[in-house]
Amino acid sequence: MITRTEQRRAQEQAAELLQKTGLAFRPDELASIEVADFGLGELESSGPLPSSGALPSSGAQILTLVNSEKIAVKLLALTPGQTLPEHAHPRLGSYEGKEETLRCAWGELYLYGPGEPTPNPKGHPPAQRRHTYTVWHERVLRPGDQVTFEPNTPHWFQAGPEGAAVWSFSTKAVDVQDVFTDPHITRQTVIVDLITRHGSVS
Amino acid sequence: MITRTEQRRAQEQAAELLQKTGLAFRPDELASIEVADFGLGELESSGPLPSSGALPSSGAQILTLVNSEKIAVKLLALTPGQTLPEHAHPRLGSYEGKEETLRCAWGELYLYGPGEPTPNPKGHPPAQRRHTYTVWHERVLRPGDQVTFEPNTPHWFQAGPEGAAVWSFSTKAVDVQDVFTDPHITRQTVIVDLITRHGSVS
Repeated sequence: MITRTEQRRAQEQAAELLQKTGLAFRPDELASIEVADFGLGELESSGPLPSSGALPSSGAQILTLVNSEKIAVKLLALTPGQTLPEHAHPRLGSYEGKEETLRCAWGELYLYGPGEPTPNPKGHPPAQRRHTYTVWHERVLRPGDQVTFEPNTPHWFQAGPEGAAVWSFSTKAVDVQDVFTDPHITRQTVIVDLITRHGSVS
Repeated sequence: MITRTEQRRAQEQAAELLQKTGLAFRPDELASIEVADFGLGELESSGPLPSSGALPSSGAQILTLVNSEKIAVKLLALTPGQTLPEHAHPRLGSYEGKEETLRCAWGELYLYGPGEPTPNPKGHPPAQRRHTYTVWHERVLRPGDQVTFEPNTPHWFQAGPEGAAVWSFSTKAVDVQDVFTDPHITRQTVIVDLITRHGSVS
């Protein structure tokens, strides 16, 4: 759950970050940025500072450019230390699940998937969620670097100290069916209007 | 047919153009840019100057970022007035054909598909090929603008006076099976080494 104010602030931060890629976006696109907190309500964290210098939090801001019955193209804007929690894109009936290529457009991304766990990884999930992260094979993506995940492959990622803008090029996206390792996660974000005692909405 | 020198020059022009998008590319990506002349050998034209100010020519420089059995992501770099001739992506057995979203990343693109012909279109195919262009419904794409074509929909496009960088986000690409309206077109480009009488290769 996040407030309308938190949503607006996250959208503004995301728009700023996406414009660092140098790419052009239409105003209606920037106004449509989705803010996802994965039901955790920790879009911005006040947790202990890890060695990387970025405060880990959970969430993502998502700009969808193409979303057809066949393919999806999205740009994810992650604030410094923001973490998209571990998940996979499972088979759904006759659809074998989402194949996804993640490509760093700006900043630095710590990306994890199956394989030999990397010693001293750069990524630090929020401490209270760390036990829900099971894959630790690290790839550090800088602008122009990309990795492709087959359907149903668990993966998670975290932005470096400056944040990151990341392309997701994929087959059909069915986000609400993504399977997260953390049982506390729900893919849909609840936005609330906080009415103060003076009647204003925040 | 183009010479190795023409290929190299086109690759360099394309790399310059793509970098105007602000995006980051790996050196191995920039070195892999495909130069397509569609068998017409008129990558650069010396034809009459149209009102737009750009000399029309036929061809495209193509940087492939993703090319799996399911999706393709490409960036097309077009020099000023360069034209990708009219074509469609047909059904191939059980594959219903390529669905494609074209999105302008930089410059200006004159894009044509089925529909009411636009009076006084901005695009000017090379004069000697004009009779092979049958769809004339115009959309002018500037950075951030995009259009999606269903499989097997004829379309063609031309870069404006500064050139253009254009995203192609699509389902599986099978370029050599594209159907071009112009019967003189072949999708594969022949590159020749010209040996001069002094023995050097150009």
